[in-house]
This record gives sequence, structure tokens and C-alpha cells, in this order.
Amino acid sequence: MDPKERALLEAFELVPAEEIKKRLMLFQEALSRKGIQAAFIFQNVDLFYFTGTLQRGFLVVPEQDEPLLFVQRDFERASFESPLRTVKVKGLSVIKDLQVLKTARTIGLEFDVIPVDLYLRLKGLLGEKKFLDISSDILYLRSKKSPFELKQMKRAMEITEHMFSQAMSSIKPDMTEIELEAVLQAEARKRGHQGWLRMRGLNQEMCNVSVLSGPNGSTPSYVDGPLKGAGSCPAIGYGSTHKPLLSGEPIVIDCGGAHNGYCTDETRTFVIGSLPPRMKEAYKVSLEVLELFEKEAMAGKGVRELYRKAVELVESRGLGDHFMGYGEGQVKFVGHGIGLEINEWPVIADLDFELEEGMVFALEPKFVFPGQGAVGVEVDYVVEPRGIRRLGKFPVDLIEL
Amino acid sequence: MDPKERALLEAFELVPAEEIKKRLMLFQEALSRKGIQAAFIFQNVDLFYFTGTLQRGFLVVPEQDEPLLFVQRDFERASFESPLRTVKVKGLSVIKDLQVLKTARTIGLEFDVIPVDLYLRLKGLLGEKKFLDISSDILYLRSKKSPFELKQMKRAMEITEHMFSQAMSSIKPDMTEIELEAVLQAEARKRGHQGWLRMRGLNQEMCNVSVLSGPNGSTPSYVDGPLKGAGSCPAIGYGSTHKPLLSGEPIVIDCGGAHNGYCTDETRTFVIGSLPPRMKEAYKVSLEVLELFEKEAMAGKGVRELYRKAVELVESRGLGDHFMGYGEGQVKFVGHGIGLEINEWPVIADLDFELEEGMVFALEPKFVFPGQGAVGVEVDYVVEPRGIRRLGKFPVDLIEL
Repeated sequence: MDPKERALLEAFELVPAEEIKKRLMLFQEALSRKGIQAAFIFQNVDLFYFTGTLQRGFLVVPEQDEPLLFVQRDFERASFESPLRTVKVKGLSVIKDLQVLKTARTIGLEFDVIPVDLYLRLKGLLGEKKFLDISSDILYLRSKKSPFELKQMKRAMEITEHMFSQAMSSIKPDMTEIELEAVLQAEARKRGHQGWLRMRGLNQEMCNVSVLSGPNGSTPSYVDGPLKGAGSCPAIGYGSTHKPLLSGEPIVIDCGGAHNGYCTDETRTFVIGSLPPRMKEAYKVSLEVLELFEKEAMAGKGVRELYRKAVELVESRGLGDHFMGYGEGQVKFVGHGIGLEINEWPVIADLDFELEEGMVFALEPKFVFPGQGAVGVEVDYVVEPRGIRRLGKFPVDLIEL
Repeated sequence: MDPKERALLEAFELVPAEEIKKRLMLFQEALSRKGIQAAFIFQNVDLFYFTGTLQRGFLVVPEQDEPLLFVQRDFERASFESPLRTVKVKGLSVIKDLQVLKTARTIGLEFDVIPVDLYLRLKGLLGEKKFLDISSDILYLRSKKSPFELKQMKRAMEITEHMFSQAMSSIKPDMTEIELEAVLQAEARKRGHQGWLRMRGLNQEMCNVSVLSGPNGSTPSYVDGPLKGAGSCPAIGYGSTHKPLLSGEPIVIDCGGAHNGYCTDETRTFVIGSLPPRMKEAYKVSLEVLELFEKEAMAGKGVRELYRKAVELVESRGLGDHFMGYGEGQVKFVGHGIGLEINEWPVIADLDFELEEGMVFALEPKFVFPGQGAVGVEVDYVVEPRGIRRLGKFPVDLIEL
């Protein structure tokens, strides 16, 4: 690589070698417990997590031996970005000759993201082996963030907070949702936003910013979240529209900052003038849900208990029908993990899952009123031994302009 | 749905019912030829192509009977957007009771995008069936654009051309690549850009705009295209950086406009001042490759012949080593299909594939000079019976500012 090109890569903050080593050690322990002798990592985000590079290739992780990163392109760049041993390959067929795969009886794969054609190719190359899904093991490992990861997320949060500040000064009556989105997206990018957010799984897409005002806040769509929106066309199907912002209606802005791989996800509700009393009341209940979590959530707490308490609180305020969507659009969670992807673990829902130190989740108590729109807040928290701590510090109050 | 919400959806230009009907008829013919009695469509883009909606669910296409669109969310919206018969379902298990699937011996699936867990679930629900890949049949159908589709692509092209015009007035020395990208992205969005581009397959990602100046134009990465770039961080891995734009170096701007599902993909080379003579020469050869195609390409022509002639032309100018990347970064094509996704058919490469009327491809003869950057042009063409026609009209010359 030419020195001028290399200088561009040298400007990056790489994932520390010790961090990669620890992640792989924990992953190998998980493989052992499951009786898996070797695992493949193919998905770009998992690859980045375990290697420090997103260059094209695949990682082979034996239960005990040294993991090997096979690189199709670009080898030199992958070798620069990753502390692992890299091997240059043209394609997948090299795995036929790998001793560790020959002797393995059970092989781990990311069943939730690997396409059928790749799966059948692997079966063809490796013959009669048992294949087991390792997605949940990876998602569990990824859910607990290290200090290095939290540092990246804090920087991502600064971008999110910059977007909210910009929204406060940019919102003008009759500006369209998409115009405001364009301004916030550009501001985020100039402040170092990595470019886009990632969401795991088939058909999962996530925009950096969505601006949902008035009835667009209650417009239904496929999204597995409380608020959807019409979007710019049927082929996009959710998010901001060309509708103008009007006085007296809620303007809900969901901003995903992202830095060095890691994303954040917070929401604020804005209004030009003031909200109808019922929506203002609902917004206060959003804040009560945050307070409930700030009081009760901590490492060791089950998400089911927290979720149920949130639902009870909301029902006691007479808002159960509007919570986390309305009618068919209601979703059965109140928060979700964030990290390299926007849909990580833990999911704060009626699930048998315990919070652990270092987990980071976006808590998003939101209320939807058909035809009128939505209100609510979304705040990112880090789980600590005795409580939860906010990742950012932008005020959570309703923003009346 | 509330009338105010419905009004937002009514602003959309839906895919005409006749268009959907024709696509499905051709698809059913393809299934028949392959001996497939029923096919599933799960991927969001394929779903949109065959149904007119991107709402969550799946389409079952029997070889002969009426296709059925099963919708998980949002049913009312899917029923509004799609002319097909819609059935509300909670999940996949409903397929156990479908007569057409019970009697089918062979079932078609999108092997290139469906994840393993979904594949195994289908196998579990449907018992002993033969599953066949239908991806190539879908990609072939999708490659031939209808007048309705070309109309959407022309609108997308207007957005791309607006981005180039904006670049001409926005580029200033010492502005960073990312700052310029942010401006162009915001301008595109305000002009109605749908939001993002799509790229088919595992780990495939595509930004709307990339600005590659000087050595960033030759910085290696994983991307299966001639130009890559360092990107903002290892976790993104390609595209624009925080490098400032300097006089006398090539600034290559790749812009993907997108409207109502359909994308375009063009590139221009800009320079503040003038380029080194060798790069200026290489740019002229890019234009010669366009001329070659404009003279020779038409329906019925094999892509192999066109690709080889392009390579011969470039080699005769002594630029073979720099064409479509350099060294390990060289790619073996000179153009690619575009449509609902940015990596469609036809691929203009050493392949046994014939151009047909209505196919649309981006021709991108580009040259990479290690340490110095890249130059080149990318232009979108529609295949016609006796030639090819440009989708847009923005001048193709080198832009000296």
C-alpha cells in the first residue's frame, strides 16, 4: 500500500488487540460448552467484532487453537486492521484442506444471517457434519460492552445530541419532515457520523434520522418498533415524508448517532407551540417510565419484571391502548439493546433474560394516537452493578419551541 | 386507518396493477419451465417487485393459481399498496395448511438471501420437498425494465444530476470529502431521494454518495467495484474520509439517486485546477470506452464481446494495469445492472449473457493510480433494439473548477 493511502487508515482508532483476544476467548468457551469444535464467522458485523476489520473474508474459530482470518479482499488492509493471523484466499474452497475442520464433528454457523446458498456450499465442501446455530452465543457476547466499546458509544451519543440541538434551532413551520431530516443527517455526518446504522437480519433496514410529525407519527408500517411513518414511497415504507411541520402537533425525532462501528438511538419530542393536553400527559408518563427504570433496573434484574412494571404503570394512567403503538401496530417491548447493530440484546420485553453489567439498551416508552401522531422519549442506558447510567446527557423534557 | 394517515399513503405513486400482473405471469412461466409447483418470496425488494408493497410478510406463487400475499404487518397498508389478494397472518405456520404447498413436489426459494434458520423452518413445516433456487429467475426478470420502471429511474437520475450540479458549486479547497458528501446527500434528500440505496446479498452495503479525492481514490478495500476508499472507520471500510480536497488531484464523486424504489448510479471526476497529464489522458480513455459501447452495444449483443473490446481498447492505450482498480483491487467487470438494487443484471463482464431490450446498466470505466487516486466516469444506459440510450443527460467531460 502506498504511504499516502496507509496514512488514511492510520487515522483510524483500531480495536485493541487485547479486546479482540478476550472476545475470542469467551467465544471459544461458548463453543466448548455447546460441543462445537469449530465455528465460521461470515457476517460483516460479527467479523468486525471478532477481528477488528470488515474486509471481505471469513473467520474460522476452532474450539481451542488459534483463530484464522481468511481474507478475499483486501488482504493488506485486513492485515493492518486486525491483530489476528490473516491468510490470503481466493474463495471458500480452501476450507476443504483445513485440519481443524476435517476433525470437527460439529460446526457452528450464524444461522440467522447466512444465506441458503452459502450453507449448502459449506455442506458440500465439508461433507457429513452437524451444523449448529451460534447466533445467540454471539449476540449474548456482543451485548456486554467493554470500556473501549462504551467510549465509542459515548462519541456516537455526542453526534446524536448535536442532532437534537440542531433540531431545536432548525425546526420552522412548513419545513417538511424530509427537509429537517436532511439538515440533521448532514450535521451528523459533518460531526463524524460513520455514515449509516446497521440492523441485523433479512429485510432489516434503519435510517439515521426519522422525523415523524402529527399523523405521520401514527401511520402504520412493517417496522418492529412503536413508531413507523409513511416514508418517502412504498419501496421504503417507513420514516419521514414530504409533509410540512405544523404548529401544535408532536414532532418526534429519532436520531441514531454512530461512531467507529457503534450506534446510539435516542428520541425527543418537539412541538411548535404546545401539545394537546392528552398528549402532554402521555409524554409525562414516558418520563415516569424512565424514572421507574432508573430506580429499579440494575445488573441481575430480569427484563420481564421491568417490562411488566412499565406496562402496569402505563395502564394505571389509562394509556395502555396507546403504549408502544396502537392496535395492530403495537409492539411487545419497551427497549432494545444497541451496539454495532441497532437491534441487539437485551430486548426489554416479557422474556426470561437478566440484565448484566455493561449491557446497553435504548428505553423507548412511546405513545401513539391514531390520526394525531405520537409522543415519547428514547434514552440509552448502560447497566451497572447497582443501577443504570445514561450514556448521554441531553435533557429528556418535551421541547416546546 | 385514519383518513389523515391514509392521505400520506395516497400521495404515493403505486406500482400499476397491470405491471404486477405481468411480472407474476412471467415468473409463473419461469417456474413451470423449471418444474417448480410453488415459490416463496421473502426478500423485501423481491416482495416489492412482485406485490407493490414492502410490508412484512411473504408471497406464495403457485405455478398456475392466484398468488397470495400473506401479511404480518401492516395488513391494511399492504392491502392498500398491493393489488394482490392479501391474507392476514401471525406467522409462517399457516403454510402447513396451504393446499398448493401440500401437493407441490418442488418449491422455489431465494437461496441467495434467505437465511439458514428460515430455510430449516420451511423444511420443518413442509416436510420432504425438493427446494430449488429461484434467485437467477427473479434477477433475470427484474433486469428488463418496463416503461413505468424507466420513468422512476429517470426521476432518480434527475436527483443524481442535481447532486453533480451541486458539487460543481460546492467544492472548495480544504473542504473535507465527508463535508462535501454531507452537502450532496442533503441536497439529494431535499429533492426527493427516497433515503437509501439497496444492494443484494450478505454484507452488501452501498452509500448514496462517495467522494474520493487524491490517494483516497486508490485506497484499497473489500468493495467489489473499481474504486473503494478508506471510509470513515474500519467498521464502515469504504468511501469518503475526513481528508481535505486539494488542488490538482482528482475528486471522483459517485452519486446514487433513488426514487420510488429505483436507483441510478453515475460518477464524474472533478478537479480544482487541472489534473496531471497522465490522469487526464486516462480520463479520455474512459470516454473512449463510453463511445465504444454507444457504437456497439444493443439488444442481442453478448456482454463478453463488449467487455473484451473495452479491455482491448484500454490495453492498446497502455492502461491495462490501472483499469477497474489496480493490482489486487482490480475487478473483472466494466458495468453492472441497476434497478431496485444497485447490483442487478446484466454484469458487463467475461460472461455468457446477452443484452436485451429494457435492461439498464451503469458503465463505469475507471482507472486507479496507486498513491495518486482515480479518474473515470460512470453513465447509466438503457438497452434498445438498435443501440443504447443514456438515462440522463449530464455532460460526461472532466469537470475542471
